Amino acid sequence: MKAIVLLSGGLDSSTTLYYAKSKGYDCRALIFDYGQRHRRELKSAVAIAKLAKVDHQIIRIKLPWGGSALLDYKLQITNYKLHNTIPPTYVPARNTIFISFALSYAEAIGAEAVFIGANAVDYSGYPDCRPEYYEAFNKLIKNGMRDNNIKIKAPLIKMTKTQIVKLAGKLNVPVEKTWSCYAGGRKPCGVCDSCRLRAKGFASLAVKNI
Amino acid sequence: MKAIVLLSGGLDSSTTLYYAKSKGYDCRALIFDYGQRHRRELKSAVAIAKLAKVDHQIIRIKLPWGGSALLDYKLQITNYKLHNTIPPTYVPARNTIFISFALSYAEAIGAEAVFIGANAVDYSGYPDCRPEYYEAFNKLIKNGMRDNNIKIKAPLIKMTKTQIVKLAGKLNVPVEKTWSCYAGGRKPCGVCDSCRLRAKGFASLAVKNI
Repeated sequence: MKAIVLLSGGLDSSTTLYYAKSKGYDCRALIFDYGQRHRRELKSAVAIAKLAKVDHQIIRIKLPWGGSALLDYKLQITNYKLHNTIPPTYVPARNTIFISFALSYAEAIGAEAVFIGANAVDYSGYPDCRPEYYEAFNKLIKNGMRDNNIKIKAPLIKMTKTQIVKLAGKLNVPVEKTWSCYAGGRKPCGVCDSCRLRAKGFASLAVKNI
Repeated sequence: MKAIVLLSGGLDSSTTLYYAKSKGYDCRALIFDYGQRHRRELKSAVAIAKLAKVDHQIIRIKLPWGGSALLDYKLQITNYKLHNTIPPTYVPARNTIFISFALSYAEAIGAEAVFIGANAVDYSGYPDCRPEYYEAFNKLIKNGMRDNNIKIKAPLIKMTKTQIVKLAGKLNVPVEKTWSCYAGGRKPCGVCDSCRLRAKGFASLAVKNI
């Protein structure tokens, strides 16, 4: 029972990897170097894959048209207005690109699932993190792949950040190795959406945000 | 009215580019170097884009897991059993990957359409060339993108190869510059699915297959 797990090195995708493992999947981690300003996350992703003892592949892609504050370093990343607007850190079609590679990998090796750590509760408001999107993608698979039984699974999609932190603790996710900050510095900035959401989860449990 | 056109350099995608232009779209061609054995098509794609006077970008990607005779040169490519089986030249999730990049590009520059030369009549039997697949993808866009008005258009999807050759003639597509063969040689092999389908279209019109 093989699965591909999209791994960014953040709290959510790392927890998803450990969750998939706990369900008995033989996991392969897929990591993307797509020109993101927070390349620091790649180091975390590789560290997490190694700690979880799963094979990993890094896919390098270029999105020369930009269109996101994560790709264009001149743009501001901070936009902490959850659920009101799609923030400037949204990367056009990013999850669609990541999932399409994962589906290719899954079909080539006979994996039956693609796991993604998307979350639609305590999230940045990205349209490609909502349940409707994943339902539509599963219909696309039914209509467009040789192996149309592959399923995209987003087990954290309806969890709060607090619940994710709890689950990470239960699964012994090495959260101290994960990286969530978008800013691209050596230390988490503490003010970007991703830092704030992460802090919220840890604070609510009075757990140290490492 | 901008559009992204997926351009392989073959007859169908080249005709699609000229068709989109004829409908008044300001087109950008997107070309993929994905490790295909018939890299020769890239030269044709660039030539066609230049002749059509449209900007083009070449995206280089690697699909290290293979899973296709177009990526694994040890596998046989010939399998002329149309509509019965999915042939070994099927590349796992290829069109999903190509379209996802095109959607990213479209959203970043404010294009309203992504054109693809997919065809479900005289075709190789790929599941990602059927109308149902494109309908599902358009639903995915509605549910997962910031600009959810982008449309994927496959204008050749229900045409026979004969109709495509006719349309190419009407639109003055420089068919002599297009490249369809999968085999990876310097001249078309004449026996792969793609060569045979192309020959069928030209023969039916008694037009020289250049």
